[in-house]
Amino acid sequence: MRANKLPTEEIKRDPAAFTDRVTADGRFGRTAEAGRYRLVISRACPWAHRVVMTRRLMGLERAVSLAVTDPRQEIIEGDPHWVFTEETGSPGGVDPVLGIHALREAYLARDPGYDGGVSVPGLVDTQSGHLVTNDFDRLSLDLATEWEGLVREGAPDLYPEALREEIEEIGARVYRDLNNGVYRAGFAPDQRRYDDAVAAVFACLDDLEERLTDRRYLVGDSVTMADIRLFATLVRFDAAYHGHFKCNIRKLTEYPALWAYARDLFQTPGFGDTTDLDHVRIHYYWVHEGINPTRIVAAGPDPRGWLTPHHREELGGSPFGEGTAPGPVPEEERVPAIG
Amino acid sequence: MRANKLPTEEIKRDPAAFTDRVTADGRFGRTAEAGRYRLVISRACPWAHRVVMTRRLMGLERAVSLAVTDPRQEIIEGDPHWVFTEETGSPGGVDPVLGIHALREAYLARDPGYDGGVSVPGLVDTQSGHLVTNDFDRLSLDLATEWEGLVREGAPDLYPEALREEIEEIGARVYRDLNNGVYRAGFAPDQRRYDDAVAAVFACLDDLEERLTDRRYLVGDSVTMADIRLFATLVRFDAAYHGHFKCNIRKLTEYPALWAYARDLFQTPGFGDTTDLDHVRIHYYWVHEGINPTRIVAAGPDPRGWLTPHHREELGGSPFGEGTAPGPVPEEERVPAIG
Repeated sequence: MRANKLPTEEIKRDPAAFTDRVTADGRFGRTAEAGRYRLVISRACPWAHRVVMTRRLMGLERAVSLAVTDPRQEIIEGDPHWVFTEETGSPGGVDPVLGIHALREAYLARDPGYDGGVSVPGLVDTQSGHLVTNDFDRLSLDLATEWEGLVREGAPDLYPEALREEIEEIGARVYRDLNNGVYRAGFAPDQRRYDDAVAAVFACLDDLEERLTDRRYLVGDSVTMADIRLFATLVRFDAAYHGHFKCNIRKLTEYPALWAYARDLFQTPGFGDTTDLDHVRIHYYWVHEGINPTRIVAAGPDPRGWLTPHHREELGGSPFGEGTAPGPVPEEERVPAIG
Repeated sequence: MRANKLPTEEIKRDPAAFTDRVTADGRFGRTAEAGRYRLVISRACPWAHRVVMTRRLMGLERAVSLAVTDPRQEIIEGDPHWVFTEETGSPGGVDPVLGIHALREAYLARDPGYDGGVSVPGLVDTQSGHLVTNDFDRLSLDLATEWEGLVREGAPDLYPEALREEIEEIGARVYRDLNNGVYRAGFAPDQRRYDDAVAAVFACLDDLEERLTDRRYLVGDSVTMADIRLFATLVRFDAAYHGHFKCNIRKLTEYPALWAYARDLFQTPGFGDTTDLDHVRIHYYWVHEGINPTRIVAAGPDPRGWLTPHHREELGGSPFGEGTAPGPVPEEERVPAIG
């Protein structure tokens, strides 16, 4: 479906178009090298945000550079496209490293006949200008587990072997009902499919509320990929999904445990410091003209609540397990502070 | 403006088309008579709701009968119109007393050349079938003050002489920034006018929060027209204005005093028992196709909070002053219970 058109059928996510894997041992053909790859993202996009959080937690900022697109996609040949603009820091509307205006150019460099969807995150090879992968989940996992030698000292184990089964089990439910469920609600083509989607969203939130009442993190005693995947949706919930996607039975802030859990993560290095709620609001309300024809961007909610005390330390656990917190965000990657 | 079209200019309310006044002394030509007039409303409409609340508090249910239109307006000659339908209890889609399908027929009976807007509430003369008035504010005030002899024993004084100036002063602000302000936000044709409108909505709510922190009612120690006017908007705020009109800096439920004040009124006879939140949600989301092209009706918010304790009795005051509470709602006028 095209996000700028009136929804006429249920949202289906295309499988990733390109899925090359980059690892330290190069066993899939591509070897992780400092400085070779550039990660193209939108601050608005939850799928890109997973990779940005992982990259920062693992200390891969210098190894993989970051290119941020404008939250307002540009219509090119009838479809909305991620582009670089002056307004969001790319002089001349061109990414200074890749020399492109629209991410689709990297897709076309890879495959001149490509005519599928273009999504962020996109990992681009700076030598060839080719898109390497847009498989956000595999890319997150590979940055978390397959870049040894390039990750920082003290990088946490975001995907511990012993917890993988549990992480994937809960991840499947959270993906279906929440990460993707909010999109099914927001782009539902009819009332029945909206009603089903929104019921699943809130059943999932209700279950998470219960699970997180007496445990600090979703799986185990430290931050894992399960938390990264969940946070990317929770941090956007009240700003975009609640109103724009009509997931409005409750706000996130009305779930005591879940809201405290989300604030705890927000205030943990790697989470809130990679979140730009203005980009989130602007992107969703402005781009999805099919469901918001005026393109007016809602003013709320007041974001200052994200900085309030959460008291989740009382539940024990430690965010980075045997690892340490990442250092400060590189200056050129800082997001605006709240409040 | 036509509510089903994409907003292209700032919302302007037409003055009421017909403004005949009906009073006990007949000094404006029409005399209040039990059984002669029929009040056509929508349960969704805040302007109609004022009159319904006033009618019930004054015990005028038998004197002025009630006709409820479908929350889904029907497009007739390109404009949305209030109509009677089987679904909302009018056999054959015709009001059994007036014998009409669309309220506009009563406007046209009054003036065959009428081509202005048609709004609820509409007071209709059952003898001639003519629309008498659609001036909701004057009609509320007249039912509250000019129907002596027909109002119930123990009817409260909703518009005490000594408080009228204060009621009208606060009413002017509440009308501009809140009652009508939410519409200015929702139908804003551009970002600037939306931003201005939504800022005024929340500045007004902030001021009301402060005012209502240590006083139970808006003006004086009992329910007055000031509370009726404010309640009509507050009770719709989270259900319609927060999401659909993008008034989403905060929910009403996030204002401790204002939310308790609204619950106190909701639980007072005349307020919650004349409110149908399903009609509210359905009307706004379904009819305003210009801002919600899918016509999907949002599922939330969970309305059960309206029934929770409010503890406002501790502030003193008494809802009906020297009057008494109205009796039970006539069976044929009952709204669905919450929960």
